[in-house]
Amino acid sequence: MRIDLNADVGESFGVWRIGDDEAMLDLVTSANVACGFHAGDAATLARTCQAAAERGVRIGAQVSYRDLAGFGRRFIDVDPGELTADIIYQIGALQALASVAGSRVSYVKPHGALYNSIVTHRDQARAVVTAVHAVDPRLPVLGLAHSAFFTEARELGLRTVPEAFADRAYRPDGQLVPRRERNAVLEDPAAISERVASMVTAGRVDAVDGSAISVTVESICVHGDSPGAVQIATAVRERLITDGVELGPFT
Amino acid sequence: MRIDLNADVGESFGVWRIGDDEAMLDLVTSANVACGFHAGDAATLARTCQAAAERGVRIGAQVSYRDLAGFGRRFIDVDPGELTADIIYQIGALQALASVAGSRVSYVKPHGALYNSIVTHRDQARAVVTAVHAVDPRLPVLGLAHSAFFTEARELGLRTVPEAFADRAYRPDGQLVPRRERNAVLEDPAAISERVASMVTAGRVDAVDGSAISVTVESICVHGDSPGAVQIATAVRERLITDGVELGPFT
Amino acid sequence: MRIDLNADVGESFGVWRIGDDEAMLDLVTSANVACGFHAGDAATLARTCQAAAERGVRIGAQVSYRDLAGFGRRFIDVDPGELTADIIYQIGALQALASVAGSRVSYVKPHGALYNSIVTHRDQARAVVTAVHAVDPRLPVLGLAHSAFFTEARELGLRTVPEAFADRAYRPDGQLVPRRERNAVLEDPAAISERVASMVTAGRVDAVDGSAISVTVESICVHGDSPGAVQIATAVRERLITDGVELGPFT
Amino acid sequence: MRIDLNADVGESFGVWRIGDDEAMLDLVTSANVACGFHAGDAATLARTCQAAAERGVRIGAQVSYRDLAGFGRRFIDVDPGELTADIIYQIGALQALASVAGSRVSYVKPHGALYNSIVTHRDQARAVVTAVHAVDPRLPVLGLAHSAFFTEARELGLRTVPEAFADRAYRPDGQLVPRRERNAVLEDPAAISERVASMVTAGRVDAVDGSAISVTVESICVHGDSPGAVQIATAVRERLITDGVELGPFT
Repeated sequence: MRIDLNADVGESFGVWRIGDDEAMLDLVTSANVACGFHAGDAATLARTCQAAAERGVRIGAQVSYRDLAGFGRRFIDVDPGELTADIIYQIGALQALASVAGSRVSYVKPHGALYNSIVTHRDQARAVVTAVHAVDPRLPVLGLAHSAFFTEARELGLRTVPEAFADRAYRPDGQLVPRRERNAVLEDPAAISERVASMVTAGRVDAVDGSAISVTVESICVHGDSPGAVQIATAVRERLITDGVELGPFT
Repeated sequence: MRIDLNADVGESFGVWRIGDDEAMLDLVTSANVACGFHAGDAATLARTCQAAAERGVRIGAQVSYRDLAGFGRRFIDVDPGELTADIIYQIGALQALASVAGSRVSYVKPHGALYNSIVTHRDQARAVVTAVHAVDPRLPVLGLAHSAFFTEARELGLRTVPEAFADRAYRPDGQLVPRRERNAVLEDPAAISERVASMVTAGRVDAVDGSAISVTVESICVHGDSPGAVQIATAVRERLITDGVELGPFT
Repeated sequence: MRIDLNADVGESFGVWRIGDDEAMLDLVTSANVACGFHAGDAATLARTCQAAAERGVRIGAQVSYRDLAGFGRRFIDVDPGELTADIIYQIGALQALASVAGSRVSYVKPHGALYNSIVTHRDQARAVVTAVHAVDPRLPVLGLAHSAFFTEARELGLRTVPEAFADRAYRPDGQLVPRRERNAVLEDPAAISERVASMVTAGRVDAVDGSAISVTVESICVHGDSPGAVQIATAVRERLITDGVELGPFT
Repeated sequence: MRIDLNADVGESFGVWRIGDDEAMLDLVTSANVACGFHAGDAATLARTCQAAAERGVRIGAQVSYRDLAGFGRRFIDVDPGELTADIIYQIGALQALASVAGSRVSYVKPHGALYNSIVTHRDQARAVVTAVHAVDPRLPVLGLAHSAFFTEARELGLRTVPEAFADRAYRPDGQLVPRRERNAVLEDPAAISERVASMVTAGRVDAVDGSAISVTVESICVHGDSPGAVQIATAVRERLITDGVELGPFT
């Protein structure tokens, strides 16, 4: 049994720091590196790619709406044609930085509000996968299993890699409990590790109402910027290893 | 005898338009496409790369300081390490857009204040060529013959392509007359064409004091955003053809 | 009989120009000056305030989402609390520039996607009027008569000034025909003038299906950046004067 | 004996946090609030003005070059006319936010590279004071005693308030030791407090070579974003009080 661990990194901007990228890169197998549209000045991204490459951690392009002030967390009703160009631009920028660091962009994962909107927003979903496909049809996309994003991606022949969130509560229908609701985010490392182990080894997790739901997952997303981020990622990693799960990038 | 004609394109941003890119792309052999830091939203850049590719016009990355409000025309005392990362980011972004358009980035030309500063600013010059070399050591750089930029470029083994400006007056020492001075910019298409023809076929041009100076040039820069830009570029092109000069990208 | 004519100005940014502000300021009685979030670098805004002040044209703050790349034309799902702060910031910036020009900000008019969203988006509508009220409860707001924006504004005691668009087609229910539909925008200066005259003097206008609808209007918006903008505004102005309507700012 | 303590606050941006503003506002008597050009989204600035107003801490406009990516720490060769407009814009924006918080902008202090450049750059110095004077000729400016900034300010009749830095080493000629040099920044709270006490009560401080130099100072700047910022500011404050110095805004 084998699983990928992914986390967001490279989300500092200029003097402003967020997350402990070096520590997270010691723990994960895939790094979603920001591309400058929601976070990540070029020098930060160069350092992050370098740090990932040194550790053999795979680099993914964490593409976003153009919104530094909102950290990419606000839906923007951008024209699909413009969104496609924005995504190509971001992937290309990171490809050059990754290449200079001796690595390359191995997958694409949308960030924040874009991630959420393309679960259902078909036009923007198509815009994103059109961009990925145009850059390189062999690039996998990382996201939610049941989403317009994946439906559109498969239509273009892109490889889709479903992920689950280590610290997010699920509804009985398999959707995430929205962040604004109570209990949407778990904080106890032990409880989180237990859930992840269940998802990975048994393909199931308890929903908020106590019912068990099935999850198919090739990667686990651990957050890099929450207060206990490093501690949680460490606990998840150790639990998986204890349970005999091999940690490694999705194939 | 053969010469390259280059012009800046892709310098619109969002709703704001500048220059008649389609018309210029019908005239030049190399297109300095903006990379988003001084101008050029991604959708504009995608369209520009497409238009260049359709005409067989070669694409160069017109890299800049990060300064939309100043159109890259203001010197910024940016740290060389950050400048290197900024340049890599820009080249990569344009590489992806050019590739999607069926073409590729064939050279790099700094823009505006960066172009001017690296004539003498050795640290920033080195920062730029370090970036170009890191992305692809086979990428030529376009600029002024007598510059720190070219000295540093040659030290890294980069191919340097010297250019001259069709519509700018020269001082007896071979430097450009600063824009703020009277007579710095020529406007008469016939006079401009005459000068260009002399530069290309005889390797000389009259300085502002009437003395003749030598110029070695592999490309002629025609401006794309001045009032009579298309008319001037047309006149230059026709004059060169009349004089038996072949127009084509530098090799 | 008296009517206000308003137009958007100050929407250039850096080297990029849009609209013929001087010509429009010779024609209108109220100028919706951009505030830097969708357009308008500070130097442009300073010049525009100066030009308006010299002509005795009243200055309004044309506030927007923070979106230069999209010219404020894309809905952004910004948090209402942040939107309120963004609007206060923009009004204040323009107040200082207007004051330096010897004038002042006399009203507030939202721009683009924000204008459209707060017709129905109650939280964002409240966010905008909360900002206006906090800055100065005597500042009128300019917008659509039947809108959440005006409902919320009146709840705070703000003066609401309903406007109509000179060149936009109306549906039988009084709403604007969306721009993406055919015939949404009128282009013939004579036809536009005829409609405006009818709106102002008779309080009615023909909808797209030929039915007559009532409109209550204290200001007419003429667009400043369409191809025939100046010609249309001139025609509207002359027609109103011919019909005995006095042109002057709303009171 | 009485002295003002000032610190930079409001320098977060979006999700990115910098400094412990609440703690610093409990210690200082004047708050240099960012204005959005180098830091400070509008919501952050609104909160900061509110927090300052609640504590009776005076608000100053910390104006900057337009450079979020560089945090205003890079010299930009901006045209003086544009700089004047940029400064007016920033002061106005903060005036509105301060006013909504029940306070007002009581002085202006340039930030970062602008602060440094106008020590000697006469054109930019004049641009800044022209802006301050145009907004309100009664607004004092905070800066270095021996500077083009103060010379130009006095020429326009502006009140100049000289400040000293609590944690910076001085050269024998009274200039600051550049940050890039060793020993430029002091870190020991006790040593810093001792120096500040000497500056305030005796008007002198030891330069790096051990010689004593005179300093005339009406305000002491304590940094808000260094690691021990709160601890240092606390130590300085307590030492001054112990020495019988009254802490209060300059008059």
